[in-house]
Amino acid sequence: MERDFPSKGQAIPDIVIRRLPIYRRGLRYLLRQGHATISSNDLAREIGVSAAQIRRDLSYFGRFGKQGKGYDVPTLIEAIQQILNIDRRWDVALAGFGHLGQAIADYRGFEASSFHIAAIFDRSRELIGARSAHGVKVDPESEIARIVGELGIRMGIVAVPVDQAQSVTDELLAGGVQAILNYAPVTLRVPDGVWVREIDPISLMQSMTYYLDDVDAPDRIKSPDSIADVAGS
Amino acid sequence: MERDFPSKGQAIPDIVIRRLPIYRRGLRYLLRQGHATISSNDLAREIGVSAAQIRRDLSYFGRFGKQGKGYDVPTLIEAIQQILNIDRRWDVALAGFGHLGQAIADYRGFEASSFHIAAIFDRSRELIGARSAHGVKVDPESEIARIVGELGIRMGIVAVPVDQAQSVTDELLAGGVQAILNYAPVTLRVPDGVWVREIDPISLMQSMTYYLDDVDAPDRIKSPDSIADVAGS
Repeated sequence: MERDFPSKGQAIPDIVIRRLPIYRRGLRYLLRQGHATISSNDLAREIGVSAAQIRRDLSYFGRFGKQGKGYDVPTLIEAIQQILNIDRRWDVALAGFGHLGQAIADYRGFEASSFHIAAIFDRSRELIGARSAHGVKVDPESEIARIVGELGIRMGIVAVPVDQAQSVTDELLAGGVQAILNYAPVTLRVPDGVWVREIDPISLMQSMTYYLDDVDAPDRIKSPDSIADVAGS
Repeated sequence: MERDFPSKGQAIPDIVIRRLPIYRRGLRYLLRQGHATISSNDLAREIGVSAAQIRRDLSYFGRFGKQGKGYDVPTLIEAIQQILNIDRRWDVALAGFGHLGQAIADYRGFEASSFHIAAIFDRSRELIGARSAHGVKVDPESEIARIVGELGIRMGIVAVPVDQAQSVTDELLAGGVQAILNYAPVTLRVPDGVWVREIDPISLMQSMTYYLDDVDAPDRIKSPDSIADVAGS
C-alpha cells in the first residue's frame, strides 16, 4: 500500500507523532474486538482523546476517513505503521542486563512488535556470556560501539544505573545509535539529531500525588485527558 | 519549612506539574555532585529545558531564586517535594505479580522514594500467598476493593495483561484509588477525578522510528528538546 505522505522534513509536531502509536494501539484493540470500521467518535471514546483531535492529527498525513462511513480499521492501522516506519524490523541494542535489563530483554511486547533486541551489553563479568530468553548473548560494555556499528543498529535502550547511563549512551551514539529509550532516572545529554524518550515511573507517580493533596476537597481534583498522560498534549 | 503556595484549585497546567519531578531529579543529582547553589542556566543545562521555562514554571509557586545568586539547591528540592506532596509516604497497591509486577515490587526506586507498595494482588493461585522481596503478601484479585479500602490506599499500579487491566482498575477505584500508573498497553476508562499515567515502552519506541526514516538524509532529522520527551511539553 503506497500513500503520498508528506515529506518528513515538513513540520509535524512531535506531540502528534507521539499520539500515533496510541491511535494504532487503540485501533488494533478495536479490530480484535471485531470492529472493521469505526467512526472518529468511537475511536475517540476508546483512546480518550477528542474526535476533533484525531481528525486533526491524521489530516497531517492525508485523508483516511470516508464521509459518513468512518475509518476502515485495518487500512488505518497499516497507514499509521507506514508513517511510523514500523512496517519493518528494527534491531535494538540493550545496555544493561541487571534485573531491569533482563525484564526488558524477556518482555514479549518487544518481540511481538517491530523491535528486536539484537545485542545486549553489561559490565558485570558474571553476566557477560549469559543469554537472554531469546538467545542473544551478553557482550561487554566496552564492545558497544564496535558491535552496534557492525550490526548497523540505530536504536538503543539504556537500562544501567544512573551513574553509568551517560557513558553507555556515549558508546551507543559512537556506534551509530540515533534513538534511545532511557530507563535511567537522569537526563541524558545527546547531540542534535538524536532522540531520547524516558521511562521514569517515580517521576510519573510524583506528578500525580500533587493532585491527591486535597483529601477533604476531592471536588477540586481535576480530571485528566487520558491521552495527555501518554503523549503529553 | 512553610511556604505560601497557591491553592491547588488555581489552574496550573498539568505539563508544569509533570516537569517538577524532573527538576527535583536534576537538583538531587546536582546536590550529590556537590552543588549547593545553582543558576537557572546551569540547572537548565542539566535537565535539558530552557532557563526561561524553569523560571516560568517555578514562578507558579512563589519566588525561589535570589537575584545574582541562583537557587539554593536543598531549599528548592524541599519546596518541590512539598508542592508535589512527596514529603510524606504514599501507600500503593500493585495489581499483577507476574514478571512485570515482580520487577516493579522489587524495584528499589519505589522504596527509596516516597512510595511504599503496601498491597499486591494477582489472580493466579500459585502466586497468591507469595511474598515480595519487601515481605508484602500477594492477595487474590477478588479482594482488591476490600483491602485497598481498609488500608486507605489512594494510588495503584496496573501490571496485569491487557484484557484484565480495566477490571482490576475498576476494583482499585472501588477501593478508593484516585491515581493509577498503568503498565498495560491499553487506555483505561476512569471517571472524572481519577488520574492515570501510562508506561508503554513500545509506543515510545514507535514514536522515535518515525524520525529514523531518512537514512540518506540525516540532516533532516530534527533534534528533540529532552524534557519534551519526559513531560511532553
